[in-house]
Amino acid sequence: MKKPETIGIVGGTGRMGQWFKAFFEKKGYNVLISSRRTSLTAQDLARQADVVIVSVPISVTIDTIKEIGPYVRKEALLMDFTSLKQKPVEAMLEYSKAEVIGAHPLFGPGVNGLKGQVIVLCPARGEEWLPWVKDIFAEAHLEMTTPEEHDTIMAIVQALTHFLFITFGATAADLSLLPETLLRYSTPNFRALWERITNLTTQNPEIYASIQFDNPFYQEKVLPMFLKHLENLKQIILNRDAEAFMEMFKKIESCCKI
Amino acid sequence: MKKPETIGIVGGTGRMGQWFKAFFEKKGYNVLISSRRTSLTAQDLARQADVVIVSVPISVTIDTIKEIGPYVRKEALLMDFTSLKQKPVEAMLEYSKAEVIGAHPLFGPGVNGLKGQVIVLCPARGEEWLPWVKDIFAEAHLEMTTPEEHDTIMAIVQALTHFLFITFGATAADLSLLPETLLRYSTPNFRALWERITNLTTQNPEIYASIQFDNPFYQEKVLPMFLKHLENLKQIILNRDAEAFMEMFKKIESCCKI
Repeated sequence: MKKPETIGIVGGTGRMGQWFKAFFEKKGYNVLISSRRTSLTAQDLARQADVVIVSVPISVTIDTIKEIGPYVRKEALLMDFTSLKQKPVEAMLEYSKAEVIGAHPLFGPGVNGLKGQVIVLCPARGEEWLPWVKDIFAEAHLEMTTPEEHDTIMAIVQALTHFLFITFGATAADLSLLPETLLRYSTPNFRALWERITNLTTQNPEIYASIQFDNPFYQEKVLPMFLKHLENLKQIILNRDAEAFMEMFKKIESCCKI
Repeated sequence: MKKPETIGIVGGTGRMGQWFKAFFEKKGYNVLISSRRTSLTAQDLARQADVVIVSVPISVTIDTIKEIGPYVRKEALLMDFTSLKQKPVEAMLEYSKAEVIGAHPLFGPGVNGLKGQVIVLCPARGEEWLPWVKDIFAEAHLEMTTPEEHDTIMAIVQALTHFLFITFGATAADLSLLPETLLRYSTPNFRALWERITNLTTQNPEIYASIQFDNPFYQEKVLPMFLKHLENLKQIILNRDAEAFMEMFKKIESCCKI
């Protein structure tokens, strides 16, 4: 199994970068980091590291890949940790000659370890580095897929889920009800929803914006599909159409059964 | 403290009716029940019981109150267990001369006891029975409010929450992704949401229909407010307006802080 001497994290002073720096160092690896705050430049890091990981804000991911890609050695591995996979993987393939694996850790820097967490991997070029990647992340649940399927699934798992949380939260903020009042009267359903909305607001909004803005499958397919169901339920309510309501309810039932 | 000799539950063969029958019997009370399946009629029950509780499907609650109200004794207590309070409480005041307390147990018949559960009480006429009601439900967290405030809060805690779950579930059902696939790729946010949607489909859809159909505050204020925020976020996404997105995010933050 091919193993790196040196792992380089571009964006290594960010919260996710710091998390993975500590993670790799604990496993005994030599970790280089670069950011606007380090004297080591991203290009120098790209030249030196055997595994180069792009962990920068999503808005500058493609530009960063363009900038460093040509300097990543052919026998090295280039990875990114962005929440969307299609465009970053395309860019890594286009601007480098290295092996390419897109990755999406489905968790934030608040977790204590990989156990119980999911990492999605999109191997895109080469086969030499995959065994090491699988090995180093073995504590996580690894899902292997294509960038297209990843972005399709994330359109609902992340983008539509956040869309609901944000619009619900904005509505709650507009009503002159205090959160204390809402929680005093809360049902198990509301408590679960409200807890996640509260958690959302402790996260970096830039990632959430990108998940809404940069996924074509979400914008072209999932969101319009959701808006159609929403319009449909609105009409059912206005018409007090109990039969159509039962049908919609039944439809969900069938899809929730595993 | 005034105590009843006999408690009567109209709709006592339903799941909630059965739950409260067992609850009161465990406390040593004599409980009468009536339904379409009992030989005891609702009117006879209303004549005999010191506390009369209407626990019938919400679609027939008002008609049931009209039917039995005149037979409930003036010194008795008339209650209902419906998810909305304004119309049932108005009807109980209009069609009976008894003491009136509207109630909404914020849980389903699946729970083991009152501990950790919420019951909303809307005392509407008389003061003699309230001490006993508070005493008998003391294990629950009791919230005292007006029917209007109850329905206002439930417009968001129940109606809007369910609206999101149903439209999200219908969208998921339309995508050709299996629930197994979604769960394999799930984030903590998605898992929490999906668990509640799955739970929803095990409940009685009639109650959920009524929560959508019968709350004027929800239909006239909360739902339009939500649809406005939804249209707003949709436009923010189409325009890739990062600044407006951050503003919306910040607004939620302020409302989540307790």
